[in-house]
Amino acid sequence: MLEKNGYEFMHGRRKASPVVGPGEFVFSAAHLDHGHIFGMTRALIEAGGTLRSVWDPDPKKRADFLKAFPGTAEARCEEEILADPAVSLVAGAAVTNERCAFGLRVMNVGKDYFTDKAPMTTLDQVDAAREAVRRTGRKYMVYYSERLHVECAVLAGYLIEDGLIGRVLSVSGFGPHRIGPPSGRPGWFWQREPSGGILCDIGSHQIEQYLFYTGEEDARICAARIANYAHPDAPGFDDFGDCALTGENGTTNYFRVDWFTPDGLRTWGDGRTLILGTEGYIEMRKFIDVAADRSGGNHLFLVNGDGEQYIGASGVTGFPFFGDLILDCLDRTERAMTQEHAFKAAELSIRAQAMAADLTPMEGRR
Amino acid sequence: MLEKNGYEFMHGRRKASPVVGPGEFVFSAAHLDHGHIFGMTRALIEAGGTLRSVWDPDPKKRADFLKAFPGTAEARCEEEILADPAVSLVAGAAVTNERCAFGLRVMNVGKDYFTDKAPMTTLDQVDAAREAVRRTGRKYMVYYSERLHVECAVLAGYLIEDGLIGRVLSVSGFGPHRIGPPSGRPGWFWQREPSGGILCDIGSHQIEQYLFYTGEEDARICAARIANYAHPDAPGFDDFGDCALTGENGTTNYFRVDWFTPDGLRTWGDGRTLILGTEGYIEMRKFIDVAADRSGGNHLFLVNGDGEQYIGASGVTGFPFFGDLILDCLDRTERAMTQEHAFKAAELSIRAQAMAADLTPMEGRR
Repeated sequence: MLEKNGYEFMHGRRKASPVVGPGEFVFSAAHLDHGHIFGMTRALIEAGGTLRSVWDPDPKKRADFLKAFPGTAEARCEEEILADPAVSLVAGAAVTNERCAFGLRVMNVGKDYFTDKAPMTTLDQVDAAREAVRRTGRKYMVYYSERLHVECAVLAGYLIEDGLIGRVLSVSGFGPHRIGPPSGRPGWFWQREPSGGILCDIGSHQIEQYLFYTGEEDARICAARIANYAHPDAPGFDDFGDCALTGENGTTNYFRVDWFTPDGLRTWGDGRTLILGTEGYIEMRKFIDVAADRSGGNHLFLVNGDGEQYIGASGVTGFPFFGDLILDCLDRTERAMTQEHAFKAAELSIRAQAMAADLTPMEGRR
Repeated sequence: MLEKNGYEFMHGRRKASPVVGPGEFVFSAAHLDHGHIFGMTRALIEAGGTLRSVWDPDPKKRADFLKAFPGTAEARCEEEILADPAVSLVAGAAVTNERCAFGLRVMNVGKDYFTDKAPMTTLDQVDAAREAVRRTGRKYMVYYSERLHVECAVLAGYLIEDGLIGRVLSVSGFGPHRIGPPSGRPGWFWQREPSGGILCDIGSHQIEQYLFYTGEEDARICAARIANYAHPDAPGFDDFGDCALTGENGTTNYFRVDWFTPDGLRTWGDGRTLILGTEGYIEMRKFIDVAADRSGGNHLFLVNGDGEQYIGASGVTGFPFFGDLILDCLDRTERAMTQEHAFKAAELSIRAQAMAADLTPMEGRR
């Protein structure tokens, strides 16, 4: 079979590299509740950003962060970071339902905000964030890592841009996650209100990808379901969710997310994205090629009139989002992602969660 | 990686083999509009059935059938087969919306009926078939080939029965099909009324699989969509369909079917079935392992607490449905499939088609 390296599909594009030199773009990190803050910080540094300071109320979280990014200044409080005129962007991974309030504080002092997904948990928060963006002119950007920080997902965008599967008709996404030992998860993880629920939380990745790959700017939720099938001790928790959306241009999306990754899988989740076009299709096996000899992730399968191609995408594209985000902050542009795209994915995932039919067996209902 | 042969998972089960000797179960074939009649006939013969006669109004179709099954008697008309006391079952693959009327004629003369899927195209036909079954005591069985005539799909049933993925929660199915040269398809293929539409036609495979793997006896359609995205010359045709169902026991199903298999794929469709359980999951790559060196179909991937396993299922299970069907006809039992299961899959696929939102772009609307 054809085994190709993703470089063959870059067509003059370059792997993402630093866009600024030391000190040209300075950011800080605060509220380290979700481990995604490490990926967010690393990616901004790799894109040329200069990490200035960190803060979290929990000394253990600060210490873990300093171990990963030694030499970072420890702020004494959130306000110290907000008051620092050298800092132009603040990255945060607060508890999900606190992400918006923190973002408003960041934007209100004239700084851009970069938060872990999901960026909000209620429609009121979406409204407040939209209002703050209009009022302050600052950015409320979101780390939708399952596309932005996965090279095969970046490459898929290039293949679509180059017309290799024709017009995109439908996107199907599977986002299984391993729950791990219950003690390894904070209390808020198990609760509906702080976590936002499964469709809001890990579902937001899926909706963001759908909007991106189809180019849809809005969509309607046709059906949404959640369930707690197997975690009766955590009645506020969804271990399963799925959703079907129809875009305003008539494309379709379905995604399923769950917390049922079995112990025997070599990684945390067998994430897949299937993209159907008029002239071909793409399958991504993002984090693992299950029961195959190929190690690692970033496995992309392209089928069109030219045949079936396996494309290894590791090390190929880099992560252009982060450099584009830095340039957007400096130039007040929207190369990395439009503000409305970031908000629309959040809004739809909140709406999906709110309207979802709950399939939890009666005996386990919250 | 672990590459296992499906035999290791048979656990005392035997590969399907003939259940009767020559002349013990005699059947005929009539109405050869869909090529599935060849698979249906071959499978019944392999299970021990004796093919007695064939009829179709089209001499070309009769000739093709006789070439595949030489020595078969050519009936002069449908009535000759219906009047033949030696024939206990009639197999047919009529135009879809004529399958029920033919089945009623077969059952009314006291014979069992075995039809290609979809077995009906309207709810009135479902009612008529249910009534005829009650009145005559005869069977109206259906060739849901994507499970019954695919060894990895049979093996998946055994793995679930053996508890290898725990309790089944969700089934997702993808049934892409190659349309081929338009001239290769009969006129009725392109029309809604005779074909039943995409969710009724190839969707019925998917719903049947969902009901089988979850053990659900009934389900509700949450959302259904059809579209003619790229065949404006055939305004009665659906080239895309998808559907989400919720079972009465709270399991979920999503399936997508389409006619967009690209020319470069080595086979007619990259059919997949993903089955999520509380303790593991199964993926079937039924007809091809895309862009892989493994040839043929029947690729099953099992992931649970024991790890990731590739299981080759070709040549392992055989096709027990057909022998069971013969025994059911002789013994008046329901080993192969209950009558209600066969009808429920048909009923739900007709309901899905009828309620589907049509996403066809306005300029291409029928």
